[in-house]
Amino acid sequence: MTDAVPPPAKPALDTLGGVGEIAALARIVPRLPASGAAVLGPGDDAAVLSAPDGRVVVTTDMMIHGPDFRLAWSSMHDLGFKAAATNLSDIAAMGARPTALVVALAAPASTPVADLEALAEGLTDACAALAPGCGVVGGDLSVSRTLTIAVTAFGDLEGRAPVRRDGARPGDVVAVSGPLGLAAQGLALLFELGVDSEGEPDATAAARARAEHPVPIAAQLTPHPPIADGLAAAIAGATAMLDLSDGLALDARRVAIASGVMIDLDGRALAAHGTGPLALSGGEDHSLLATFPPGVTLPGGFAPIGRVVAIGGAAGGEAGGAGDGAPAVLVDGRVVDERGGWDPFAEWSGQGG
Amino acid sequence: MTDAVPPPAKPALDTLGGVGEIAALARIVPRLPASGAAVLGPGDDAAVLSAPDGRVVVTTDMMIHGPDFRLAWSSMHDLGFKAAATNLSDIAAMGARPTALVVALAAPASTPVADLEALAEGLTDACAALAPGCGVVGGDLSVSRTLTIAVTAFGDLEGRAPVRRDGARPGDVVAVSGPLGLAAQGLALLFELGVDSEGEPDATAAARARAEHPVPIAAQLTPHPPIADGLAAAIAGATAMLDLSDGLALDARRVAIASGVMIDLDGRALAAHGTGPLALSGGEDHSLLATFPPGVTLPGGFAPIGRVVAIGGAAGGEAGGAGDGAPAVLVDGRVVDERGGWDPFAEWSGQGG
Repeated sequence: MTDAVPPPAKPALDTLGGVGEIAALARIVPRLPASGAAVLGPGDDAAVLSAPDGRVVVTTDMMIHGPDFRLAWSSMHDLGFKAAATNLSDIAAMGARPTALVVALAAPASTPVADLEALAEGLTDACAALAPGCGVVGGDLSVSRTLTIAVTAFGDLEGRAPVRRDGARPGDVVAVSGPLGLAAQGLALLFELGVDSEGEPDATAAARARAEHPVPIAAQLTPHPPIADGLAAAIAGATAMLDLSDGLALDARRVAIASGVMIDLDGRALAAHGTGPLALSGGEDHSLLATFPPGVTLPGGFAPIGRVVAIGGAAGGEAGGAGDGAPAVLVDGRVVDERGGWDPFAEWSGQGG
Repeated sequence: MTDAVPPPAKPALDTLGGVGEIAALARIVPRLPASGAAVLGPGDDAAVLSAPDGRVVVTTDMMIHGPDFRLAWSSMHDLGFKAAATNLSDIAAMGARPTALVVALAAPASTPVADLEALAEGLTDACAALAPGCGVVGGDLSVSRTLTIAVTAFGDLEGRAPVRRDGARPGDVVAVSGPLGLAAQGLALLFELGVDSEGEPDATAAARARAEHPVPIAAQLTPHPPIADGLAAAIAGATAMLDLSDGLALDARRVAIASGVMIDLDGRALAAHGTGPLALSGGEDHSLLATFPPGVTLPGGFAPIGRVVAIGGAAGGEAGGAGDGAPAVLVDGRVVDERGGWDPFAEWSGQGG
């Protein structure tokens, strides 16, 4: 639906409102990464993507100003990088090779076009670093009061079965590739140090915090999920896998419930991550959690952090068994608090920044 | 990034904020249409979609509260219907059969869950009416100040070449399936009649306008693009095709420029549509514009509205030829004003309603 009322004031020249959609796209599109799987790229009603396997893996995830990011903390390049990385991670968690993205972007008319160029370059840098050959085959550019980035990502299973979350079997090794709790540690540092004297997100304070704590803050703002390890896990015979977005305790519970098993984590292995309780509760690591048959040589960066046990089995003495509300995740045989994660509807304060 | 600050007040019980993400999804997902092409549906990190052709057609389009719709005029069911229909139309315009959608939805925490159930039912009704067998294979639910619906749609070419916009050849017949200017007429009626005494969008006034003018207002709020005619056009040998989203004059210009030809429209055929100048300038019809080799029996609902002529050819006496800034669309041999369309960045007033 279009709006017949003229805009209230002449927008600034180098903004989306100033240059208009077509000129903005002409500056953004050349900065987007090309996809090796594009049969027909951007410019027609739709793109055509190669799917040599006869199946295509599909995931979508939105990032929204306010609940998902603060512009005082994330640069536009950071946002492009993270929007790609988090979607690529969901593709990798199925054991697929990422092939392409489509990106729908809505921004205030006052947004400088240079900001969207930086966002496009962030998408390009994420694809180059994490999934070479993957690129953008299409998109949509709109105006909104709220900066919103909706990415849909595609992957190729290369003839393999998808690695679902429901295949873990008693006796399997539980392993993780990537950090545990590091992104949450970075976020806590931003809330502590990246604010002004009123507690409001502040760009100068955030830059100082980032210089002092580059590793955890980068894990939060520009995560580098181990995309290649997703393929390697599938090839090695992983029985279940998922992307750790809501924290190990909650995501391991998802695997346990779906598979009808319990997961017993090794407290010493968790402690080795150095993030304390955040190793269990911290979200947004986008590490890969996978289960492997016993005896398999763990591929790539996977390290063992526990094992799969039968409901009512040896390690489950304390626990009644998996199911809605029942314990499904243990640490050293003891039931853990499986909370964690974050419900945007119940928990977002409405703050921007 | 998550937000450590607690929400300011307890949200109302039957809203997204009140029930939370998981309970909301449990109510929405069963109302979504199933896809016959789903190898693995919602519930894992990603879905797996059948692509028997070895290629998949992909398009994405966002609808945003303010620039794209008014909640006083569109019901949530209308919004779901239109979000599906406009994306299905882009798939059909490539000559492909729509197979699946993914839907990323961001809504204020105060949104009643029943509203999102209605939106899901709108998606279902659009798929059932326009593209039976097409359904939702995945999605994302987020919180935002601005209601935003981002749909990505998929299609199967069934072994055919995609019908692009650059294949029109001199001598081809130009044809359209679906209305010309009707959606714009509906929008004009809403701006005229669907407002209160202050000129603000008003639900009661809009309901009255819709009862008095059901056809044009339905064309605007719940368009029914001729999806099956996209396939039929491809099978019949259409040389170029696109979805009419920005008005015939501007979209025909796109075909002409891409194909290196001019398009000469038949004034009497346009007049038959009964929408006056809106037949050329009105956007959002989501009708299909296609070109066919001479002598082809036009399939489905396609009706001839003109012909393709060579640059500098018989009908182009007045025009210098296609190219940036050069005329590319004629009516009865005379150059027409090819403006039309709508640039959201330059032209949105910032109004909601």
